[in-house]
Amino acid sequence: MTPIVPGGVTSPKGFRAAGVACGIKRRGTGPTPPLDLAMIVAESPVSAAGVFTTNKAVAAPVVVTRDHLSRSGGRAQAVVINSGCANACTGEAGMRVARDMAAAGAVAAGCTSEQVLIASTGVIGVPLDIARIRAGVVEASRGLDKDGGDAATRAIMTTDPFPKSCAAIYAAPGGTVTVGGMAKGSGMIEPRMATMIGVLTTDARVAPAILAAALRRVCDETFNAITVDGECSTNDCVFVLASGQSGVEITRDDDPALIEPMRAVAGHLAREIVRGGEGATKLLTINIVGAASLDDARLAARTVANSPLVKTAVHGGDPNWGRLIAAAGRSGAAFELNRASVSIGGVELFVNGVPFDERAEAAAKVLEQKLIDVTIDLGAGGDGAATMWTCDFSAEYVRINAEYRT
Amino acid sequence: MTPIVPGGVTSPKGFRAAGVACGIKRRGTGPTPPLDLAMIVAESPVSAAGVFTTNKAVAAPVVVTRDHLSRSGGRAQAVVINSGCANACTGEAGMRVARDMAAAGAVAAGCTSEQVLIASTGVIGVPLDIARIRAGVVEASRGLDKDGGDAATRAIMTTDPFPKSCAAIYAAPGGTVTVGGMAKGSGMIEPRMATMIGVLTTDARVAPAILAAALRRVCDETFNAITVDGECSTNDCVFVLASGQSGVEITRDDDPALIEPMRAVAGHLAREIVRGGEGATKLLTINIVGAASLDDARLAARTVANSPLVKTAVHGGDPNWGRLIAAAGRSGAAFELNRASVSIGGVELFVNGVPFDERAEAAAKVLEQKLIDVTIDLGAGGDGAATMWTCDFSAEYVRINAEYRT
Repeated sequence: MTPIVPGGVTSPKGFRAAGVACGIKRRGTGPTPPLDLAMIVAESPVSAAGVFTTNKAVAAPVVVTRDHLSRSGGRAQAVVINSGCANACTGEAGMRVARDMAAAGAVAAGCTSEQVLIASTGVIGVPLDIARIRAGVVEASRGLDKDGGDAATRAIMTTDPFPKSCAAIYAAPGGTVTVGGMAKGSGMIEPRMATMIGVLTTDARVAPAILAAALRRVCDETFNAITVDGECSTNDCVFVLASGQSGVEITRDDDPALIEPMRAVAGHLAREIVRGGEGATKLLTINIVGAASLDDARLAARTVANSPLVKTAVHGGDPNWGRLIAAAGRSGAAFELNRASVSIGGVELFVNGVPFDERAEAAAKVLEQKLIDVTIDLGAGGDGAATMWTCDFSAEYVRINAEYRT
Repeated sequence: MTPIVPGGVTSPKGFRAAGVACGIKRRGTGPTPPLDLAMIVAESPVSAAGVFTTNKAVAAPVVVTRDHLSRSGGRAQAVVINSGCANACTGEAGMRVARDMAAAGAVAAGCTSEQVLIASTGVIGVPLDIARIRAGVVEASRGLDKDGGDAATRAIMTTDPFPKSCAAIYAAPGGTVTVGGMAKGSGMIEPRMATMIGVLTTDARVAPAILAAALRRVCDETFNAITVDGECSTNDCVFVLASGQSGVEITRDDDPALIEPMRAVAGHLAREIVRGGEGATKLLTINIVGAASLDDARLAARTVANSPLVKTAVHGGDPNWGRLIAAAGRSGAAFELNRASVSIGGVELFVNGVPFDERAEAAAKVLEQKLIDVTIDLGAGGDGAATMWTCDFSAEYVRINAEYRT
């Protein structure tokens, strides 16, 4: 496992970034307006790929960026992201604004519109002010810097309780590959809905198709293996850009020199998103083993991770193996009760269909911690295994999400 | 639509019932021990059918009762239900207890064990005390009465805030068909998990296969069209018994003389279960229209009804059409954003992809009510339509379910 180190999208060679305040996000009580526009620029068009929301109610920037990656053959020079307005459910006008946002990025970066990736996060159904975006892009392009990763990270935050960025370095035979990344999490947006945005950068030299395959592979185990409340937004996306400046050539999508540091960075950012989930007080790792297939394992992991009864029990410190068994049992995955087992933090509460309630106290101790591991053996006798990260479910989540939007 | 009337499982001709306290449920602070064993008996073996949980972690009474209905060819004379202990995740010992519970019912009712349907609801993973069940069955069988429906209804309650029973009468050409019913809802059980149990009775004359088909048809539109938190328990079941004493012969599973009063009773009980959901303050009706198929409509309705973001928005009185659109969009049903529409209580907030936020105040007024109708047109251009009932999501739900079990 490649360790993560402090850093961000400007850690790999070949990228500069900036974060500016362009007036989209409502001004708070602080002395300065909040950062709400991030820009990341490579020195020339480089290999790029994206993974996007599967929601059919898809926001304009997602439609435009998917189209750009397709038309450019997976090449991009700039990423422009705004927070404070999602440009979602905004009809044909929203599509025009999204195209204009990419065009502004292209002028500033000196590339074509198709070589610009854009993303938006914030209120749904509200027009995005393109004049402010244009001014912000001009300002950001003037401030692009090798140390701009932190400002860019802060500029994409909405209600995230903390910024999320890191880097990882892999020593390959031919040189050193660095991957950097930043993300924003599924905090409610003013308070419309949750959006996840992630940007990875690397100095590996890799063709667009291989980069895209590697990104999908990594996302399945990281950003697609987390859940706060099972919601999938109109704007979710993860981008990756590869400058090639390390000189390390990647020719396979499973090359550890690329996959390992990408997985480290994406995995850390994904878990940070969960840790910063609304009202979250605990980070829960759900391990499923003994599944008939990988698909079954993922299905069971997702069902358990999204179960309100499981998440409230963890919040309350209740070592309630019954809810874990019941959630796994209703998931649709093959499940054999008499061969199923449950452990919480290594405390085996249910083994081959037999409860050990005398161990409840030891498990309750585990649940007092902030990081909790749960393992469920589905008893289906297969090799299928999967892991999913989630947070507990608190009254604070309800409070945050029930508050009338202002 | 057949109206419902006060009544219960003893409203149709040919049924007696009782509810007694046998010491399974923990004694509360009241002057008398809580009722925890219900018995319903017909005068002879009659047509019977059941619909059961799809959870693969299935409790012993469900396994036994499914087997009984299969071996008896859909004939039963008695139903025995206990609350306070689910007899779930109790291994081979629990299977023996379930069989003994049915045997006790058979002795008391004067039929074979295969002609007894049983159900349990309560704590998971705890042995069910068969001695108390046997004593309770003897006492209940002595107290069986035409007026015993109310006591039986109270005996199956766990944390339900109110008892749920009713009846419906249908005037058919050949006579009058009565359907009665009782149910318990998805309140947390001490506080392990939610279980739904429903029992319908009728005096229609109907063969077991037709009765079973009618029950499945009715459940799809009623008990299977409600959700509190998307959880499906180890013990969920719905039974129906038909005494035949009305003399009205039913020869088709869609005969209105049977289906109409069954739908009225089951629909009322189902909505009462949602109204009595944990921490619920509002009953929400989700109507999906414009779906490509019935399956798509049901999928979208279920996804919207289980969305934590939708349920917290309703709780907070926020007319948040964005969350409704996003939940429908991620459901997997065919969805066309530019032809999609949303209305809350008849207030159209989003029409063919265009938001009308100036109507938010009128919709917020609607959300102050206890009964709220939401309609979402998926814009897929089909005839598919479905309705699902759910409740809002409150901090009280979290409090109830996060409390450490005692």
